[in-house]
Amino acid sequence: ESLAAGIIQGVRRDIAKAITLVESKSSRDQELSVKLIEKILPKTGKSIRIGISGPPGVGKSTLIEALGLRLIGKGKKIAVLAVDPSSVLTFGSILGDKTRMPNLSINSQAFVRPSPSSGILGGVTDSTRESILICEAAGFDIIIVETVGVGQSEFNVAQMVDTFIVLLQPFAGDELQGVKKGILEMVDVVVINKCDGELKEQAMKCCVDYTHALSLIKQNDKTKWVVPVLKVSALQQEGLSDLWLKIVEHTAFLKQINKKKSKRIAQDEQWFWEIVTKNLIAEIKQDKSKQYVLKTILAQINDRKISVLQVAKQFIHHSCD
Amino acid sequence: ESLAAGIIQGVRRDIAKAITLVESKSSRDQELSVKLIEKILPKTGKSIRIGISGPPGVGKSTLIEALGLRLIGKGKKIAVLAVDPSSVLTFGSILGDKTRMPNLSINSQAFVRPSPSSGILGGVTDSTRESILICEAAGFDIIIVETVGVGQSEFNVAQMVDTFIVLLQPFAGDELQGVKKGILEMVDVVVINKCDGELKEQAMKCCVDYTHALSLIKQNDKTKWVVPVLKVSALQQEGLSDLWLKIVEHTAFLKQINKKKSKRIAQDEQWFWEIVTKNLIAEIKQDKSKQYVLKTILAQINDRKISVLQVAKQFIHHSCD
Repeated sequence: ESLAAGIIQGVRRDIAKAITLVESKSSRDQELSVKLIEKILPKTGKSIRIGISGPPGVGKSTLIEALGLRLIGKGKKIAVLAVDPSSVLTFGSILGDKTRMPNLSINSQAFVRPSPSSGILGGVTDSTRESILICEAAGFDIIIVETVGVGQSEFNVAQMVDTFIVLLQPFAGDELQGVKKGILEMVDVVVINKCDGELKEQAMKCCVDYTHALSLIKQNDKTKWVVPVLKVSALQQEGLSDLWLKIVEHTAFLKQINKKKSKRIAQDEQWFWEIVTKNLIAEIKQDKSKQYVLKTILAQINDRKISVLQVAKQFIHHSCD
Repeated sequence: ESLAAGIIQGVRRDIAKAITLVESKSSRDQELSVKLIEKILPKTGKSIRIGISGPPGVGKSTLIEALGLRLIGKGKKIAVLAVDPSSVLTFGSILGDKTRMPNLSINSQAFVRPSPSSGILGGVTDSTRESILICEAAGFDIIIVETVGVGQSEFNVAQMVDTFIVLLQPFAGDELQGVKKGILEMVDVVVINKCDGELKEQAMKCCVDYTHALSLIKQNDKTKWVVPVLKVSALQQEGLSDLWLKIVEHTAFLKQINKKKSKRIAQDEQWFWEIVTKNLIAEIKQDKSKQYVLKTILAQINDRKISVLQVAKQFIHHSCD
C-alpha cells in the first residue's frame, strides 16, 4: 500500500499512522499490520537497537534527550519508543508524554513515540517489535526503546534490542535490593546517572559496588563481554561520549562474534513462540468441538473430584490424539 | 502413600518433604506430585488464603509474625509460604530466611516455609498452588503467601488467594508512582505499615491519598467490596485486630455472594490454562514430525524473507490441520 511507501520515504505522519495500526487490537487492523510488516521487511534490520530501563525518576528522559541530540549532531536519525505501563495512581502515564523530551521531540531528525499500555500484564510490549521494524524501514539509524522497571516490561524490552542498558542512580544503603536478578543477567551496559553535585562521591562507591556485584553474576551471554558500569550526568551532559563509545563497542563486539545476527535470530524465534502460544490457546478456547470436553473438565475441577494437575494432563492427551 | 497420610496427620517433616517434592523439577518427582495432590485433595479447600505483597523493607515479615502469633493465641494454626524472587545483588534472598520471623517459625502451631525462586520469570510461583493444598490438607486454618513486589510474582500470588493485601508505608512525594496499576485492581485490603513515631502524621495524609486513588479505580470485582485502607504498626502491634477483622469481613463477604467459591473456581481455571499452555508448547517443541517444518520456518525468518508474524500464522494453520 501507499502506507508502506510513505514509511520508506520517512513521512512522519505515515510512520505514526503505521504504529497506531500495529497497536490496534481490531482483527482487521491486525491483518493489515501483518501485510504492512511484510511489505517493509526488506528495509528493516539495519539500525542499532538500544533498550534503556530504569526506575521512575532516575532520569531516563533527560539522558535520552541529551544522548539523542548529541547523536543527531553526528548526523544520525533517532527514534524513541517508550513502553509505558501507565499508573492509575498518578492518573496517567509513568513515563510522561513527549513534553519530557522537549527538544528531541521537535527535532526533524528524531521521532518520539510514547505507547501507553492498556493491559495489566503482557500487553505492554505487544506491538513494540512491529514499531521497531517500522522505524527501521523509515531509515532511523538508532532506535531507543525506553521502559520503567515495572512488571514484565523490562524483560520484554531486553529481548528485542541489541544493547540493553539499565540506568540507575547513586544509592544509599539497601536500595540495591530493588534490582532484579533476571535483569542483571540480561544487561549489557550499566549506567549510573546523577553523578554530579552532592551525589558525586556516593556515585564512586556505588560504581565499585555494582562492578563487584556484576562480576559475581554468571552472564547469559557465554562470550566475553564484560558489562561496564559507567558514570554519567545527563543533566550536565557528562559521560555521554563514553556511553556512546560503549554502545558502539558493544555493537562491534556483537558483529565480531557474529553475535548480533544470532542474538536477533534468537529474539525472532522467541517472538515466534509467543505468537504461536497465544494463538493456539485462543483457538482451543474457540474450538466448538472442544467445548463439551472443556465444560466437563472444568465441572470436575469445581467438584474437587480431581485436581487441576490431573485434569490438565488428561486434556492435553485428549487434544493431541 | 504414607506421605499423604503423614501430611493429613500434620507431621511437619512430611509437610516439608511434600513441598520439596512439588518444588522439584524432575519429571519423576512431578509425577509423584500429581499423585500426592490427588490423594490429599479431599482434605483441601478449607483454609482462609491470604496474600501479602509489598516492597522490600516495608515490614512484611514483622507484620506476618505479629499477626500470626496473635491468631495462634486465638487457637488458629498458621502456615506461611514465602515466594521469594532472590536477588543476586544482595547475594541471596530478598525476603530473607526463617530467622526473620524468629518467634513464629519456632511455634508449634505455625509452619514457615521460604521458597527461593530459581528462574528469571514464571518459575517463581510454579509450585505455590500445590504447597497451599498441602498446608490445607495438613490442617492449617490460615495460609499466608508472602511476596515482594517484583516482576510477576505478586500478580501470580493475587491469583491464588482469597484475600490479597498490599502492604505499603507512608510515602513522601512521588513514591506513589511505584505502585502498579494492575496490582491495585486486584487488591482487597491496603495496609499502611509503620504508622508510628515520626511517620504518624505523614501516614494520615497517605491514607487519605490512597483512599482517594482507590476510589477512582474500577475494581475487577464487579461486586460492592470497598477496598479499605488500614493504618497499622507491626512493630508496636497496633491496628492488627482491625486488620484481622477486615480479613474476616472479606471472607464473609466472599461467602455471602458465593464469591469465595467462584473466585477459587476462576483461579483453578486459570491454573488449568497455565498448565495446558506450558505443556502444549513443550509437546510441539518435542514433536519429531514438526521438527522439519519448524526448521524450515525458522530458516525463513533468519533469511528475512518473511516476517515472524506471517510465519507464525502459517505454522498455526499447519498445526491445526
